Amino acid sequence: MAAQPAAPVAVVVGAGDATGGAIAKRFARGGYTVCATRRSADKLQPLVDEIRAAGGQAHGFGSDARKEDEVDALFDDIETRIGPIEVFVFNIGANVPSSIMEETARRYFKVWEMACFAGFLTARKAARCMAPRGKGTMLFTGATASLRGSANFAAFAGAKAALRALAQSMARELGPRGIHVAHVVVDGAIDTAFIRENFPERYALKEQDGILNPEHIAESYWMLHTQPRDAWTHELDLRPWMEKF
Amino acid sequence: MAAQPAAPVAVVVGAGDATGGAIAKRFARGGYTVCATRRSADKLQPLVDEIRAAGGQAHGFGSDARKEDEVDALFDDIETRIGPIEVFVFNIGANVPSSIMEETARRYFKVWEMACFAGFLTARKAARCMAPRGKGTMLFTGATASLRGSANFAAFAGAKAALRALAQSMARELGPRGIHVAHVVVDGAIDTAFIRENFPERYALKEQDGILNPEHIAESYWMLHTQPRDAWTHELDLRPWMEKF
Amino acid sequence: MAAQPAAPVAVVVGAGDATGGAIAKRFARGGYTVCATRRSADKLQPLVDEIRAAGGQAHGFGSDARKEDEVDALFDDIETRIGPIEVFVFNIGANVPSSIMEETARRYFKVWEMACFAGFLTARKAARCMAPRGKGTMLFTGATASLRGSANFAAFAGAKAALRALAQSMARELGPRGIHVAHVVVDGAIDTAFIRENFPERYALKEQDGILNPEHIAESYWMLHTQPRDAWTHELDLRPWMEKF
Amino acid sequence: MAAQPAAPVAVVVGAGDATGGAIAKRFARGGYTVCATRRSADKLQPLVDEIRAAGGQAHGFGSDARKEDEVDALFDDIETRIGPIEVFVFNIGANVPSSIMEETARRYFKVWEMACFAGFLTARKAARCMAPRGKGTMLFTGATASLRGSANFAAFAGAKAALRALAQSMARELGPRGIHVAHVVVDGAIDTAFIRENFPERYALKEQDGILNPEHIAESYWMLHTQPRDAWTHELDLRPWMEKF
Repeated sequence: MAAQPAAPVAVVVGAGDATGGAIAKRFARGGYTVCATRRSADKLQPLVDEIRAAGGQAHGFGSDARKEDEVDALFDDIETRIGPIEVFVFNIGANVPSSIMEETARRYFKVWEMACFAGFLTARKAARCMAPRGKGTMLFTGATASLRGSANFAAFAGAKAALRALAQSMARELGPRGIHVAHVVVDGAIDTAFIRENFPERYALKEQDGILNPEHIAESYWMLHTQPRDAWTHELDLRPWMEKF
Repeated sequence: MAAQPAAPVAVVVGAGDATGGAIAKRFARGGYTVCATRRSADKLQPLVDEIRAAGGQAHGFGSDARKEDEVDALFDDIETRIGPIEVFVFNIGANVPSSIMEETARRYFKVWEMACFAGFLTARKAARCMAPRGKGTMLFTGATASLRGSANFAAFAGAKAALRALAQSMARELGPRGIHVAHVVVDGAIDTAFIRENFPERYALKEQDGILNPEHIAESYWMLHTQPRDAWTHELDLRPWMEKF
Repeated sequence: MAAQPAAPVAVVVGAGDATGGAIAKRFARGGYTVCATRRSADKLQPLVDEIRAAGGQAHGFGSDARKEDEVDALFDDIETRIGPIEVFVFNIGANVPSSIMEETARRYFKVWEMACFAGFLTARKAARCMAPRGKGTMLFTGATASLRGSANFAAFAGAKAALRALAQSMARELGPRGIHVAHVVVDGAIDTAFIRENFPERYALKEQDGILNPEHIAESYWMLHTQPRDAWTHELDLRPWMEKF
Repeated sequence: MAAQPAAPVAVVVGAGDATGGAIAKRFARGGYTVCATRRSADKLQPLVDEIRAAGGQAHGFGSDARKEDEVDALFDDIETRIGPIEVFVFNIGANVPSSIMEETARRYFKVWEMACFAGFLTARKAARCMAPRGKGTMLFTGATASLRGSANFAAFAGAKAALRALAQSMARELGPRGIHVAHVVVDGAIDTAFIRENFPERYALKEQDGILNPEHIAESYWMLHTQPRDAWTHELDLRPWMEKF
């Protein structure tokens, strides 16, 4: 009796926050076996449980995306034990605003390491998995800071601009190899515990749809993934109707 | 007995080409009464017939989008007789490359008049219809030239850049009034009779999905229309996987 | 006895405002015979007198830059009677903010006609004069609106974006023919009678150098003109130190 | 007898190549005491000697711009012993093209560390020196890759995009504090030994001014420095007349 082919895999790096979690759930609902990663595996369990309870397939992996060896081993393990990686989502952010005068070297480095270098390590490995098969989707979460360096955002804007440059470079190299690389500029506050607790006035706009619903962000990721290859989007922005831009 | 509410209307200005036609069909399939316009009503009949044969609602209007009076009268007529305009699509292009040395004043003007001024007249009128209701979607077709003035494309790039500025300005003014304004940058050859006849080598890429399928473009317009208002896209690009950019 | 070669000519289209006047004076000081144009020749006389009193060469021409025949005849006349046009500056603006809801077709057209179409007509003619000689400098005055369509600026942003596209297209076509085409994005209020009378609070920033001095703008135009051809600038921005951007 | 005030200082970080050297010489000629840095002090001696032979003031410092302590100590030392830093130039590049498939983590990191992190460390320290005095000029050398991530340039484009974001963020924070921050996009090959040896065909364009002369780049840096504060440029591009863009 022939073995059943493995379900295609969607790896979501940085599934720790609301957006990453919603993306994971959306791809699980779309039939993908989701491999969600964040530094602490424990914290992934509720997400994995939720996906499974809804009838989906999911695995949680504690993994530090800034460590080359860990990343390579994890992706190899997923490909071997779970299935071919068809979708890759990079969703790690790390915004700590600071005046340039007070910015520390350690923080500037850490922000880049998490929001950009980890993106390079994981995306490169994903590309190496996908390229021989000539297909795949790679999605990067961007922000307003991806496009402009505002005052007090040197570290975050630097990391995000570099991540966008990575996505562009990969799109130009890997598009013609059949891999769809896209970058999503999220411009506005997202409905997260962080916003609720730290920016209550902002959060109050939720009643008027003034902050982004993670499920709606996730829907755009899914849409990007399902675009036929004659009409791929490389970049789109997402913002609430009332957001200034 | 109460009158049945009119079906919502999608006006597609410039439904003469493959893209406009595909957009019209997509919105008809989505339940909209499509009002398709182009200069010659006769040429719209096949599109209208096709939509009706598929069970949809459609009307064709011969109308010159460069004439303020005609535009205003047409939109008023549609609102009165057919139903409230909920979707507006501007899809008129007019690309005639020329060295700046040989460009004529007449052609430079005509390209702007068709690709930009007509967009202003029709979009302004659509906005005036939609704004009091606090809802609506306005979609503009852009091109590579919307973003950059290449050699020999001064007229087209000028018109497209101005149309993009119009879309941006309207998005910033009308977004907070509940109207979703988006601009689609189509970057690549589209599967049209024009490309088939004039650029056969390019057209041959169709077998490899190397030119854009109008139906897939239309699907992105539909997707933009259906985005919930907490996560609107203002701009996205569309290009074939093998297209250089 | 051989005739003396004519002094090289700098044509400044739109020398009616403070900026155009300052540019004219700068090029006169640099040894150019300045041909300043605006619709009313009378209003140019003070500028011409000032340049001559300072020992420079200047001529004022009443000419409507939106009229193809007038433009062509004027430039031909200048080339024949005064000297070869080496520098061309387009400096006509026309900003009348309006909500898109209230914008008139007439005003939308007029703004484009003055700020863009006149630029096309005059720049094309200048290019036709310069190209056979394989040298020349063409400078376009841009604004914040050249880069972004803000709310209530649809007309101005459209005209300015189109003018920028024209400058880009001409740079790409004419650069390799020896003509330096550059676009200057002036981002901030300029020290003009208009600002003084209509925005007194803004004007008060002059004491802190918070508004642009036309002479300093002119100096940048001169700098662009004098760049050696191995290191040409196509675009630069100018804004006061305290301006937000 | 009162001590003579120290001459103002221009620090050029990355004075190892042709461009950095030319900038150093230009500011020396403009009356600045130049403090040139690169990793190896020995290699700076010819530059220092040349400046001094021409009657200028210069000092060479071997210093690793990626080391926070070294950078801070060096700038403190310059301020104490030589004079107040009025001009800061960051000119370290590090372009090693590679397919994303073969890019190494080490190289990706090194390129960022040299072309961006060193920029952060040195620019932050320069800002700390300048801000209390409310004046200064900070100039960053950019490249085509600062604006776009081309295929095979993920590392360089990432570092350059991040450096540009740093310059933007600093301009927005420090401009209103009297410090002029500008970013120069050098788009084209520069007349260097590297180009001469590795790209002889490209280098042959020198005869037609087809590659950038470092002295002309330096002149633009000087021009930026001398702009009055009511009309500052934040970004300009530089490219040979025949360069495609």
